[in-house]
Amino acid sequence: MPNPIGEFDLIARYFTRPARQAVLGVGDDCALIQPGVGMQLAISSDMLVEGRHFFPDVDPATLGHKALAVNLSDLAACGATPLGFTLALALPRVDTDWLAGFSRGLWALADLHGCELIGGDTTCGPLNICITVFGELPQGQALLRSGAKVGDDIYVSGTLGQARLALDALRGTLALPAPLLALSRQRLEQPTPRLALGQALRGIASAAIDISDGLTGDLGHILKASGLGASLETAVAIDLLAHDADRAAFASVLSTAQQLDYVLAGGDDYELAFCAPFQARAAVQAAAEKSHTPVTRIGRTQAQTGLRLQQANGTFLTQKSKSFDHFA
Amino acid sequence: MPNPIGEFDLIARYFTRPARQAVLGVGDDCALIQPGVGMQLAISSDMLVEGRHFFPDVDPATLGHKALAVNLSDLAACGATPLGFTLALALPRVDTDWLAGFSRGLWALADLHGCELIGGDTTCGPLNICITVFGELPQGQALLRSGAKVGDDIYVSGTLGQARLALDALRGTLALPAPLLALSRQRLEQPTPRLALGQALRGIASAAIDISDGLTGDLGHILKASGLGASLETAVAIDLLAHDADRAAFASVLSTAQQLDYVLAGGDDYELAFCAPFQARAAVQAAAEKSHTPVTRIGRTQAQTGLRLQQANGTFLTQKSKSFDHFA
Repeated sequence: MPNPIGEFDLIARYFTRPARQAVLGVGDDCALIQPGVGMQLAISSDMLVEGRHFFPDVDPATLGHKALAVNLSDLAACGATPLGFTLALALPRVDTDWLAGFSRGLWALADLHGCELIGGDTTCGPLNICITVFGELPQGQALLRSGAKVGDDIYVSGTLGQARLALDALRGTLALPAPLLALSRQRLEQPTPRLALGQALRGIASAAIDISDGLTGDLGHILKASGLGASLETAVAIDLLAHDADRAAFASVLSTAQQLDYVLAGGDDYELAFCAPFQARAAVQAAAEKSHTPVTRIGRTQAQTGLRLQQANGTFLTQKSKSFDHFA
Repeated sequence: MPNPIGEFDLIARYFTRPARQAVLGVGDDCALIQPGVGMQLAISSDMLVEGRHFFPDVDPATLGHKALAVNLSDLAACGATPLGFTLALALPRVDTDWLAGFSRGLWALADLHGCELIGGDTTCGPLNICITVFGELPQGQALLRSGAKVGDDIYVSGTLGQARLALDALRGTLALPAPLLALSRQRLEQPTPRLALGQALRGIASAAIDISDGLTGDLGHILKASGLGASLETAVAIDLLAHDADRAAFASVLSTAQQLDYVLAGGDDYELAFCAPFQARAAVQAAAEKSHTPVTRIGRTQAQTGLRLQQANGTFLTQKSKSFDHFA
């Protein structure tokens, strides 16, 4: 039986809107955009594969949200303002309910950040979502991984570890009470790209990255690119698992070691880890308030390479957690 | 057994080179590019899926070439000069021989056109190649699908139909003598993006598109976007199957109807179809010569919508060919 709608109808029905910021949007061989005078274009691509990045039965609206969110998170990490994105989609079949849900979740997040869908591709194949996102920022102001200096403070936005907790609970390798699973699942399925914080940190942060593979692994990219090491305070880090009342709830079902492990090496958090000089503490707080994003200072960069986890009693913890590798 | 190399090693080994034109290339959260003053950025994405866009046993070097070529072809169709591209790759496993071949084919074409790999993503999953390409062109000079006017000449670059002939021969639905299969297979597996022609046609062509789904289907997009119809001369079109000595060889194994069908509705050609006013004939020829690309005038746009195929005796052929639809 032929599909109820064809490729061009599918694009027209679910993925086409008139261009607003872009010079030319969906419907020609290329889209056209024109960055402002003196602006640089920041570009990032992420590919999401069924069974690897999401469960086959995930709500399509949350998948639409997440597919764009993980890309916007890369723009956040370099301090860029979103302009637009392309969407390439391989679908095993045309399922109009799925497409309606997926596009609803996608548009909702795109509209929240004024990020237009400007082009893409649709084909038949195992479910695969590839988004390339474009943002702009003033020349020379991008937050890079390589800019951290010795003695910089290290900060993290929001909370860490819940996304991985939800993943383990959904896979059945960990038991979580229903309210905590619901909370964590929200973090796994609908991450919040920290765009306002990233933009507010331009000119303040010395280096930044978004946490997709786990804090220690991603912070390790900053340290490697900057030629530094760091010390993190475990007593501060462990409280990043959750804020306020939820904090105690998680502590009641997880051991101290588990809590710390999820915070340090959970992954899929899409919070920002960033460095800033001691002198910028007030500016970092002002950026956090301006962007309505909580940030926590968790450590400091050091000349000695390697990452040291300092406990409240002053001794160092041996870290066994590893960063996520898609081919490991 | 763990893979011999991990995700980050894989990117470093096969897909990282120092940035040349780009402000920042592979290795941070985003790549950074800065179009020249007054330049617009042209962007296009194409996704290639194993079994749909290429045979599982295709030579990885030709696949690397083709994956970039089909994207560059979109830049050619709007007259843009390539700047860079992102590559998102889902691989079922880390096969270093495959990666070496794929990246070799990719780099060779990229270097030919000064198009840098500036970022991307690598993950585990059914083989899927998604490239997003970036080019620049002076503000307002993009060749669009919507600019054709009544009475414009219609042109096609190069030859059409051999890629589809090779596909049918490889699938076993058509017999081709070995020399003709080798010739056609080259067109299927290593298409030539017509970048020099596209750039030379800026300010001359009124509309352009690249032929990926077949001439009549893709020309149909120009006609629809421009609110026009057209008449094509079948006696001219049929000679587009091959040039010079090869022309007779194909004619000796294919019926007239077959030859015309492959030319008009073959697909995967990656030639340009474009329109230009009568007054621009000398300019079109000059652009063809400057870009060392043969072009053939095959018809004319008309106010009456629909596509008419005019035979040498003046009568019209009823066209049954359809454009390619990935979900049909």
